[in-house]
Amino acid sequence: AAHGARKMEDYGRFLALLASTLLVGFLSVILSLVWVFHYREGLSWDGSLGEFNWHPVLIITGFVFIQGIAIIVYRLPWTWKCSKVLMKFIHAGLNTIAMILAIVSMVAVFEFHNAKNIPNMYSLHSWIGLTAVIFYSLQLFLGFAVFLLPFAPVHLRVALMPIHVYSGLTIFATVIATALMGITEKLIFALKNPAYSASPPEATLVNCLGLLLVIFGSLILWMASRPHWKRPPAENAKILRPIGATPEGTEVESTMTNSNADKSDLRGNTEAARKQNIKFDEAGQRSTM
Amino acid sequence: AAHGARKMEDYGRFLALLASTLLVGFLSVILSLVWVFHYREGLSWDGSLGEFNWHPVLIITGFVFIQGIAIIVYRLPWTWKCSKVLMKFIHAGLNTIAMILAIVSMVAVFEFHNAKNIPNMYSLHSWIGLTAVIFYSLQLFLGFAVFLLPFAPVHLRVALMPIHVYSGLTIFATVIATALMGITEKLIFALKNPAYSASPPEATLVNCLGLLLVIFGSLILWMASRPHWKRPPAENAKILRPIGATPEGTEVESTMTNSNADKSDLRGNTEAARKQNIKFDEAGQRSTM
Repeated sequence: AAHGARKMEDYGRFLALLASTLLVGFLSVILSLVWVFHYREGLSWDGSLGEFNWHPVLIITGFVFIQGIAIIVYRLPWTWKCSKVLMKFIHAGLNTIAMILAIVSMVAVFEFHNAKNIPNMYSLHSWIGLTAVIFYSLQLFLGFAVFLLPFAPVHLRVALMPIHVYSGLTIFATVIATALMGITEKLIFALKNPAYSASPPEATLVNCLGLLLVIFGSLILWMASRPHWKRPPAENAKILRPIGATPEGTEVESTMTNSNADKSDLRGNTEAARKQNIKFDEAGQRSTM
Repeated sequence: AAHGARKMEDYGRFLALLASTLLVGFLSVILSLVWVFHYREGLSWDGSLGEFNWHPVLIITGFVFIQGIAIIVYRLPWTWKCSKVLMKFIHAGLNTIAMILAIVSMVAVFEFHNAKNIPNMYSLHSWIGLTAVIFYSLQLFLGFAVFLLPFAPVHLRVALMPIHVYSGLTIFATVIATALMGITEKLIFALKNPAYSASPPEATLVNCLGLLLVIFGSLILWMASRPHWKRPPAENAKILRPIGATPEGTEVESTMTNSNADKSDLRGNTEAARKQNIKFDEAGQRSTM
């Protein structure tokens, strides 16, 4: 009973944190819209500042908020009754949406720059931002090929999962850092008379937006790195333990657990395990024939 | 023998990564000095730009490089024969040096601003930077009180360790993000004719410095989050298992392991454990008397 009460308390704590995260995320999106519509030129697609303004709005909506949700989607307790493969599709789908919005938001800046004869890719913001988008696309492609398609052998999944988790969280943090640089650039360039240094209301509002992004990122990283909030491994994990899980694999798996990867992804990947078992059975039959 | 070979290979990989990290870190410090001495006004302490220049140099040296080393100091295999308490002093000492350098570097900016009548604390960089320094000081103070002084009960250490690790890594990432904002600000303000957007050599050099900081941070976070590179728990862990480690404690401890905390910190804190045992013995004697 005491154990059950502790579990409920922990569940409540997760929900409270999730609600705070969603609130901070929504507020960030709203502040970006207030910034663009109340203080700036609104949204358009005509090479003007209105086109540039899609950049902060889409980055904050897609590359920060949606990416953040994609990271913690396996942790939502009410999804644990759904199949793992469905959750993988949702994880990959949200990340794909985030990637598309990030790319569209970059196109908006390039078109704006070209229309106004402003050089592209000169700032640290652009260097790190483009690097982040390239690594994010690579991560999405590799994740799809290794963890969603049924072809990768279990030992490869086991070996790559800690790298997938680490890259995902590092790219996410880098994206937020890049957003903070972008905010800094934009406020310096846009605010003249009064300047940024005179702290006009727009500066205060957008500084608060930057703070919210840091809080959002910190909350996502906390939720993603608490091992007791992980999706539990599949019930039939032991029975279907794949043949690929040699002692070598097991060792990597134990390090994986620590790096917050989802055990059930590897143990409970029933389809791949079954296929491997069938392959093994066939091989066995052939060798005894 | 195969296991031993794998261990050696893993040790080699750790050393290679450590060497790369140190190289990237040193290179960052050197680039900050080249920036300040070759392209800017050098270093001085007279309210001029030479005083401002202490800010990037001390932040990169102290708040990025030394803090990074402080984070991974427990992972250095040749320190595993040293006592845990010595390593804690080194960890705390490096962090104290980093904090002092960060504070001095902030004083340099405030003095420069005041001498030139530039407002303080208006930028997102300053907001997040000051927040990071405050949280860093708090983290250092709490870490000292809970993990170094012998007064905190084991269950408190167990409960706080995952928070200590998470806060440490999150503050470190935030510091790097803040440095990137600072670089962005400084390049926009300092480069006129040719402007930042014309990509003069100084801009390229300092953009590269920014990239190096991101690489340094990513390497530190990778090393800090690989559980198999942790300092191994003390040999006499079982014998000295403290009384405070109830089933409740054990559960928290297992989550801690996953969040990269050092088990030996809790199991092997022999002094605290012994004290608790003595207390328990005294209590036992009293109750039987």
